[in-house]
Amino acid sequence: MMPLRVWGLAFLCWMVMAGEGARVRVYKWEVKYEYKSPDCYKKLAITINGRTPGPTIVAQQGDTVVVELTNSLLTENVAIHWHGIRQIGTPWSDGTEGVTQCPILPGDTFVYRFVVDRPGSYLYHAHYGMQREAGLYGAIRVSLPDGEREPYHYDYDRTIILNDWYHKSAYEQATGLSSKPFVWVGEPQSLLIHGRGRFNCSTMDAATCNATNPECAPYTLTVVPGKTYRLRVSSLTALSALSFQIEGHNMTVVEADGHNVVPFVVKNLFLYSGETYSVLVTADQDPSRNYWATSSIVGRNATFTTPPALSVINYYPNHLRRAPPTRPPAGPVWNDVAPRLSQSLAIKAREGYIHAPPAASDRVIVLLNTQNRIDGYMKWAVNNVSFTLPHTPYLIALKHRLLGAFDQTPPPENFDPAHDIYSVAKNPNATTSNGLYRLEFNSTVDIILQNANSLTPNNSETHPWHLHGHDFWVLGYGEGKFDIEKDPKSYNLVNPIMKNTVPVHPYGWTALRFRADNPGAWAFHCHIEAHFYMGMGLVFEEGIDRVGKLPSSIMGCGKTRQFTSP
Amino acid sequence: MMPLRVWGLAFLCWMVMAGEGARVRVYKWEVKYEYKSPDCYKKLAITINGRTPGPTIVAQQGDTVVVELTNSLLTENVAIHWHGIRQIGTPWSDGTEGVTQCPILPGDTFVYRFVVDRPGSYLYHAHYGMQREAGLYGAIRVSLPDGEREPYHYDYDRTIILNDWYHKSAYEQATGLSSKPFVWVGEPQSLLIHGRGRFNCSTMDAATCNATNPECAPYTLTVVPGKTYRLRVSSLTALSALSFQIEGHNMTVVEADGHNVVPFVVKNLFLYSGETYSVLVTADQDPSRNYWATSSIVGRNATFTTPPALSVINYYPNHLRRAPPTRPPAGPVWNDVAPRLSQSLAIKAREGYIHAPPAASDRVIVLLNTQNRIDGYMKWAVNNVSFTLPHTPYLIALKHRLLGAFDQTPPPENFDPAHDIYSVAKNPNATTSNGLYRLEFNSTVDIILQNANSLTPNNSETHPWHLHGHDFWVLGYGEGKFDIEKDPKSYNLVNPIMKNTVPVHPYGWTALRFRADNPGAWAFHCHIEAHFYMGMGLVFEEGIDRVGKLPSSIMGCGKTRQFTSP
Repeated sequence: MMPLRVWGLAFLCWMVMAGEGARVRVYKWEVKYEYKSPDCYKKLAITINGRTPGPTIVAQQGDTVVVELTNSLLTENVAIHWHGIRQIGTPWSDGTEGVTQCPILPGDTFVYRFVVDRPGSYLYHAHYGMQREAGLYGAIRVSLPDGEREPYHYDYDRTIILNDWYHKSAYEQATGLSSKPFVWVGEPQSLLIHGRGRFNCSTMDAATCNATNPECAPYTLTVVPGKTYRLRVSSLTALSALSFQIEGHNMTVVEADGHNVVPFVVKNLFLYSGETYSVLVTADQDPSRNYWATSSIVGRNATFTTPPALSVINYYPNHLRRAPPTRPPAGPVWNDVAPRLSQSLAIKAREGYIHAPPAASDRVIVLLNTQNRIDGYMKWAVNNVSFTLPHTPYLIALKHRLLGAFDQTPPPENFDPAHDIYSVAKNPNATTSNGLYRLEFNSTVDIILQNANSLTPNNSETHPWHLHGHDFWVLGYGEGKFDIEKDPKSYNLVNPIMKNTVPVHPYGWTALRFRADNPGAWAFHCHIEAHFYMGMGLVFEEGIDRVGKLPSSIMGCGKTRQFTSP
Repeated sequence: MMPLRVWGLAFLCWMVMAGEGARVRVYKWEVKYEYKSPDCYKKLAITINGRTPGPTIVAQQGDTVVVELTNSLLTENVAIHWHGIRQIGTPWSDGTEGVTQCPILPGDTFVYRFVVDRPGSYLYHAHYGMQREAGLYGAIRVSLPDGEREPYHYDYDRTIILNDWYHKSAYEQATGLSSKPFVWVGEPQSLLIHGRGRFNCSTMDAATCNATNPECAPYTLTVVPGKTYRLRVSSLTALSALSFQIEGHNMTVVEADGHNVVPFVVKNLFLYSGETYSVLVTADQDPSRNYWATSSIVGRNATFTTPPALSVINYYPNHLRRAPPTRPPAGPVWNDVAPRLSQSLAIKAREGYIHAPPAASDRVIVLLNTQNRIDGYMKWAVNNVSFTLPHTPYLIALKHRLLGAFDQTPPPENFDPAHDIYSVAKNPNATTSNGLYRLEFNSTVDIILQNANSLTPNNSETHPWHLHGHDFWVLGYGEGKFDIEKDPKSYNLVNPIMKNTVPVHPYGWTALRFRADNPGAWAFHCHIEAHFYMGMGLVFEEGIDRVGKLPSSIMGCGKTRQFTSP
């Protein structure tokens, strides 16, 4: 017989340590496939307790969130990442399959337990295969402690997740991506505003696509005239960069990825997959009508493939379903990079909320983003290394010193200085590796994301990079090839924003800095799901010896499968 | 660091024990999704080394078969059952997820290793979720030792697996089956003869369904006039009972499920999912033309949904693609049970190959087959208990005495004698359980499969029951309700055939006997994949204390996940 490990006890101590006022928020989730029609087209989606997006986790700073996740998929495993939560002291709860845990098997219940140590707007989503785009995602909202207030005023707080939506299954997409020749699914069929979109069903039978299905009724936000709304707007698109706008209303950006920003006003907010923003919107327009709120694709030409998503700002007491009398506003020109770069540059830490960055870094890692080929397969790579996940999660392999679990050769810190970022590479062949970057604990690391031409002439895509386990300072953005002599002089070391997800713009660079102060193994990757699947990512290790005893619940795969009965 | 368990060594000894002449046949298989068009309609299929059906395993009696199976599915586990192989001494290689092993995780390589101890025709297929009908199946052909001969003559040996084929994915089907209200996928779109069928593509675009795709060219068997062919014909349908026939040719049945039968001649051979037969066919017809070989659905009305599958018997030297000049023969009347019962009764053990059954049994278990409801969900059940698989495989739970891994209450041995098998049950509610039947080692057990009305008035379906780890003697078939006093008197104890899969005909009963002499945990279930998924199965345990040390490779799920690093 097997003695059970008493994890509950360890967590109990923890709850006490969480301090007065902090609560434990327990969620019981069942993950399974269900037929859903978020854009009127009926397809299988992965749901949480029957919903996609899943329930919003609502907590207060310092609370412990416990998610008891039961996998009710039939033959498929699952893992959920808590996007923006640093998992300080709980690296095994990061939910990144292959990095911090083995996947959760069908029938198993896995307990995620972590402290939400900062207020702000965060996300969660599947981090296994391409399950995120099957619908497994949702929002996390962390409020300030009792008695504390945001440095801005609002009357109501609302959460809106933007997404794109494909009619082909994640399996079909992944099979195409890993086929030779490469089969690309193309642009999404729809955009969703908090799980609701609208596909044109006119050529389809009603069993397949039913425009009157209440599941695809437009998302509607009812507002009281004169009141101010904090909209926590985020994006978890599989592919698309988005512009969000509300007809006739300004939006004041006040938060980005959980950090207060110097407020600035936009007509349209650009969002890249993995980003969260709070904007303040005052219902200060003609109250006798409703208004459109839309999201539309930028950065890729989806003019003829993916119409903007429409939702309605309903001025109380107008009828919820009363259509605005106007045409929905057109989105911005899809290929105009300048306003997007402007927005990136506008995001700075708000006075009183500035975390000063270290003045210098201990190490600079330059990461060239390219599209590549390996044996005729299409890949994405960093410094010509296309990343693959190992079958034994790094966190366990490192902590338990399991030999042979991953490549011991670290990936390169830079790229060939002769690389012409404006042209298709003459030799687009890459190598593949699951090696990782080992960082000295508490050291300061600079990351330069360097964009380049893809395999298509005159094309460079926007890549939103997301770092697990940390926020980084965004020191700067630039156009063209990064100059290690000149460009660091322009870094913003005064009030750089801290974020967890940041775009690198076409043919541009983005400079980040972070402290390697969170013991664990942490993924850093392009948040476009297909790009990460095709190799655009890497893993950092830091302070592995300071990681506490790993829970056995994260084991069971790869080399940890052979762990035996005691 | 983790000391590796040296399994290789144990197996090495084994190979030596396998004796002179016996060989080790090593197969390296990669399982993954690929787009396939077996009936011209393109859909994702699970393939082995790019093929569906997978490669035929060809071995000789006494050989050890080693299959090194790498799971290259993205997020989905897998397990493969070796259907008809008794796994004597290797119950952990039976490949039944939830019964004999944890599923094989993506990225893992699992080694199946077993002795094929008897000559004959066997099968393999996925035994996890509903992956079998996604295309993961194939044949095993075991020849006699050198110098030994079958008691019948043939010139050539050919393998033909029959199947049915759905255009909806196994996920979509399973989601429907477990939905409230129940969503039934209906009859298959096509029947396949060794992986080839033909859907009518006329209303579809060529990218979706292409009638000229070579993948759906009809299966063709070239024969030399005058020669005799042993056709190993088997069925692995998800749902359908089949009739197989060859235009203008008689078939002499000589083998059933690996056992020689008293030869009998048929015009059409009825096959239920999980059955294998060998028939002898002599190419004795007009050699100037080709002939149709067809399979068609019986037992269910698929007249307007699923046309017969067509293949061609190509008389050499006629052109392979020359269509026979005739109309394909029509299949038998779908709802005429009498000829099917006749065929069942005709199958007897051939003289010289009779294994005498024990004259009496130690225990009689009567199993009522019904369609039921639980909380409004549609189910199938045995004695009003709908079976569910536990998350910790029985074999491991039993051997390691893991408490709480499954219900300790054994399921019932009989049903309410007042049950009217000819009517829809007045109370169709069932309970659910994962309890199992524990059998005294080396005892003789009789199983009475009792059919009944389904939830549809005047409907009773045919269920092919398959037993793992054993062959059973088929003692008799009857119509109506089994009479424990009268019916055993009619048992065939002289020359009953041994099989591993047997039908219970509509409103009828089938009586089986087996020796509980193979230490392990063994599934016994309806081989209709949806029926097993919906609860129509059970598990036997016998001699668990005699099972050798379990390989750690079968562990990693349920309660075995918590096994820790030594």
